[in-house]
Amino acid sequence: MERTWKDWQDTGAYRRLQELAKRPYDLTAPDALSKGGRLAEYICRTDIFSLHYATQRVDDQVLDGLQELADECGLVRQFAEMRRGAVMNRIAGLESENRQVLHTACRDIFSDEPVEPVASGQAKREIEKLETFLQELEKGKLCNEQGEAFTTMIHIGIGGSDLGPRSIFEALASFGQQEREVYFVSNVDPDAAAAVLGQVDLRRTLVNVVSKSGATLETLANERFIRRALIEADLDPSRHCLAVTGEGSPMDNPGKYLRSFHMYDYVGGRYSATSMVGGVMLGFYLGFEPVMDFLRGASLIDSGAENPLLRENIPLLLAMLGVWNHNFLGSATLAVLPYSQALHRFPAHLQQCDMESNGKSVTRAGRAVSTKTGPVLWGEPGTNGQHAFYQLLHQGTEIVPIEFIGFRRSQYTLDIEIEGTSSQQKLLANLLAQSVALAIGQKNDNPNRDFPGNRPNSILLADRLTPATMGALLALYEAKIVFQGFLWDINSFDQEGVQLGKALAGRFLRHMKGKKEQADTLETSILQEARLL
Amino acid sequence: MERTWKDWQDTGAYRRLQELAKRPYDLTAPDALSKGGRLAEYICRTDIFSLHYATQRVDDQVLDGLQELADECGLVRQFAEMRRGAVMNRIAGLESENRQVLHTACRDIFSDEPVEPVASGQAKREIEKLETFLQELEKGKLCNEQGEAFTTMIHIGIGGSDLGPRSIFEALASFGQQEREVYFVSNVDPDAAAAVLGQVDLRRTLVNVVSKSGATLETLANERFIRRALIEADLDPSRHCLAVTGEGSPMDNPGKYLRSFHMYDYVGGRYSATSMVGGVMLGFYLGFEPVMDFLRGASLIDSGAENPLLRENIPLLLAMLGVWNHNFLGSATLAVLPYSQALHRFPAHLQQCDMESNGKSVTRAGRAVSTKTGPVLWGEPGTNGQHAFYQLLHQGTEIVPIEFIGFRRSQYTLDIEIEGTSSQQKLLANLLAQSVALAIGQKNDNPNRDFPGNRPNSILLADRLTPATMGALLALYEAKIVFQGFLWDINSFDQEGVQLGKALAGRFLRHMKGKKEQADTLETSILQEARLL
Repeated sequence: MERTWKDWQDTGAYRRLQELAKRPYDLTAPDALSKGGRLAEYICRTDIFSLHYATQRVDDQVLDGLQELADECGLVRQFAEMRRGAVMNRIAGLESENRQVLHTACRDIFSDEPVEPVASGQAKREIEKLETFLQELEKGKLCNEQGEAFTTMIHIGIGGSDLGPRSIFEALASFGQQEREVYFVSNVDPDAAAAVLGQVDLRRTLVNVVSKSGATLETLANERFIRRALIEADLDPSRHCLAVTGEGSPMDNPGKYLRSFHMYDYVGGRYSATSMVGGVMLGFYLGFEPVMDFLRGASLIDSGAENPLLRENIPLLLAMLGVWNHNFLGSATLAVLPYSQALHRFPAHLQQCDMESNGKSVTRAGRAVSTKTGPVLWGEPGTNGQHAFYQLLHQGTEIVPIEFIGFRRSQYTLDIEIEGTSSQQKLLANLLAQSVALAIGQKNDNPNRDFPGNRPNSILLADRLTPATMGALLALYEAKIVFQGFLWDINSFDQEGVQLGKALAGRFLRHMKGKKEQADTLETSILQEARLL
Repeated sequence: MERTWKDWQDTGAYRRLQELAKRPYDLTAPDALSKGGRLAEYICRTDIFSLHYATQRVDDQVLDGLQELADECGLVRQFAEMRRGAVMNRIAGLESENRQVLHTACRDIFSDEPVEPVASGQAKREIEKLETFLQELEKGKLCNEQGEAFTTMIHIGIGGSDLGPRSIFEALASFGQQEREVYFVSNVDPDAAAAVLGQVDLRRTLVNVVSKSGATLETLANERFIRRALIEADLDPSRHCLAVTGEGSPMDNPGKYLRSFHMYDYVGGRYSATSMVGGVMLGFYLGFEPVMDFLRGASLIDSGAENPLLRENIPLLLAMLGVWNHNFLGSATLAVLPYSQALHRFPAHLQQCDMESNGKSVTRAGRAVSTKTGPVLWGEPGTNGQHAFYQLLHQGTEIVPIEFIGFRRSQYTLDIEIEGTSSQQKLLANLLAQSVALAIGQKNDNPNRDFPGNRPNSILLADRLTPATMGALLALYEAKIVFQGFLWDINSFDQEGVQLGKALAGRFLRHMKGKKEQADTLETSILQEARLL
């Protein structure tokens, strides 16, 4: 696509925001939260989620500046062009992947006029294959050697083929179909696959091998590991193994697999959870319709993200508030803290999606960046974290901006009332209390019991964590990450930074080969190998 | 204890280190890693672990400065006094907990002359109770209403009563006894307990309720939740529930529990994994002898931590390298990256132990600190992380110091050889390759493929992850955290920062009581409640 955006530091908005950042809104001032209807006004409401951001260190001037910055850098326009097939995965003038970025097409399948028909058409075909496959399992047309139904799936994948699918599986575990269970193997650590093999009945197990390139070292090693176990159990791997891979990859070999599903090079690994990378496993576990709901939730967000108004566009607002905290107020990290045990692995997925996308130092024009790009993202569920690392959030010397995520209702209907309130109410009360406490702080004569406040945070709130909500939450963060990448003018879709480690590991392995050499002699290995560089 | 230590910024070493930090060792210079036998020399070897730190940005001058700083601030002496019962949990002149800090006594039980006999005596008595209890389970003297053996334990606890025990359980899952399984419930989220109830046979389940204060909101709610389920299943809760709690706490009520185990106020929650907080669950799952091995590993580290020589004392060395990176070189976070899937929850435990201990802003003299205290600690296992957030580690604008953890051999003996190397070799090769790649970097004409290097890291290496190794690893990090707290002159043993959120949550709950009010009206709640402050 044509370069029509400005460098963000060359904008008027950037300079004005720099001035405003010298005196950010003081959340600890009297009535700072209630003044001017702030609590009611600083809420962005959309169909599924609302974003409550009165506890951020912003006022209308800052929000206007962020709006202007987003406009001057054409963030929403670039997002719209991305969805319509622009080649966004590139660095101008340098060798790069030069690809479209169309993970959004995986869910733009509900209208007759998708914004990019080719990719959406391909997505639809894969979804039809999935529907047929699930029906055949249901009707017993596909079954094991003994004619029994498959009850178990081992999902093999790593990185983008693991963290997204796994965190969504965990989030929706309570919606699983009777007698269906899923295990995950990702790490090349042989203990990981061995632990899973100890828990499953291989005869009734489908093995879902997921690798876009069809050449991922860890995934191939784990596939062989499990195939060997199948053979040792007198089972035919081609009756148990499924493939999800790029068309034409070394794994795209139907003879070896019961079924093959495709993904395309315009869907990056860390953005692939709504492609067949997540779809096959989720379909097996949840059934077909819940997967459609999941995609529908994501699709809603994608359309909403084209709204140019900052105050009405949740992913854009989250992105710009993040930039305010990270670039203007100087925080190094971002904590994402879901008040939902089911979302316990979602921060790990975001850690990948955000840090791999925006942990960059070169602009899309091939020059070194002159501002900070992506922060370190981390998180664990509340209330657990309250009994763990929240001490530092309240009283430490590092200021950590926080994105809370909460739900009004629980997934299971089981709950217990103690002293007049349910556990779900206790969960919510804690979320709200933390948000307010971090913002306003509290003076105390005992300096060790003093809370400085002004710790910026926001709350993403939805009614209940369902397949549709989960799809929306996923897409919301994908869009947020992409918006920030556009602003920093970096390529959020490549990952050149993983290459050196991979190359060096290969050299170390060649050195170890056959030698039964363990790490005892690692110094020597490193010495010898380092000289190769 | 008497205040005999210096403020660390008033030492000669501090000023010298500040000077040295202007030109830290350049790991990207030619032969930077091999020069002067650096790779072989910068290894600290002890019985269980060795620490490889040639890939840190230090030279002999810096190490000498760090040694001197540790000496001038009396770190090892304070550690020895702590183990011998000094009242270290206090702030001079302010209201504070005023307690001894004796988690080390829980494992100082293997000689006839423990360094603090009273606490070690109490620890021994609890261990004897545990041994008897486990024997009674084994011999069938303790069994369920139908005379069947207990096969399952639900461990209920949160924060220090959860993260340590759970991460150790995960780490040692491959050593579990046949027909014993453990589930954990921590979050007040009602879905967490509901999900576990869906998986267990309550008739054969022991419920281990762990709360030092006996008054932890989440734990009491979850205990009631599970007790209600026991009663609904026509089971007698007092035949299924165990208590681990402080002597004299509201939970110290033998009539309600099959057995009660005690902990004491000189063991902080986040340091309590080697007390009965971890012991009861680990004993049930692993058997008694492995728990002894676990304690023995921890005990070895405690003794070794009294070695005054920085280059021979792994926890002290880790602590001082951490201070170098955080305070002198200016990094905000620390990543702990185990190359072992079994350790996947260990970073979450450390996140608690480190950030709750050292996320402080007031010195032990009651003054505001004038340097940074604890960093944000986070991490996920390798090689998984390589396919996720390593992009930012290699090429991002945030410099993240890293502590890798690795093992020469796997836990299970299952492994597979592909192209001449085993999966365990691949795991190790990747660990070494990442360490070197992050340190030395690599020039490339394509700036997007350039690796700047100088990303400091070290490797903790042991032979195999066993109960003894796990005990050592745990104690090693506990000692590291304590050393850093001593240096920053903060109280690493209190957690006043969690109080405000707790108090506010209580107010919100009173407001919600009976009203069936959901978060829809949360703004109003916050407004009304905020005015109460």
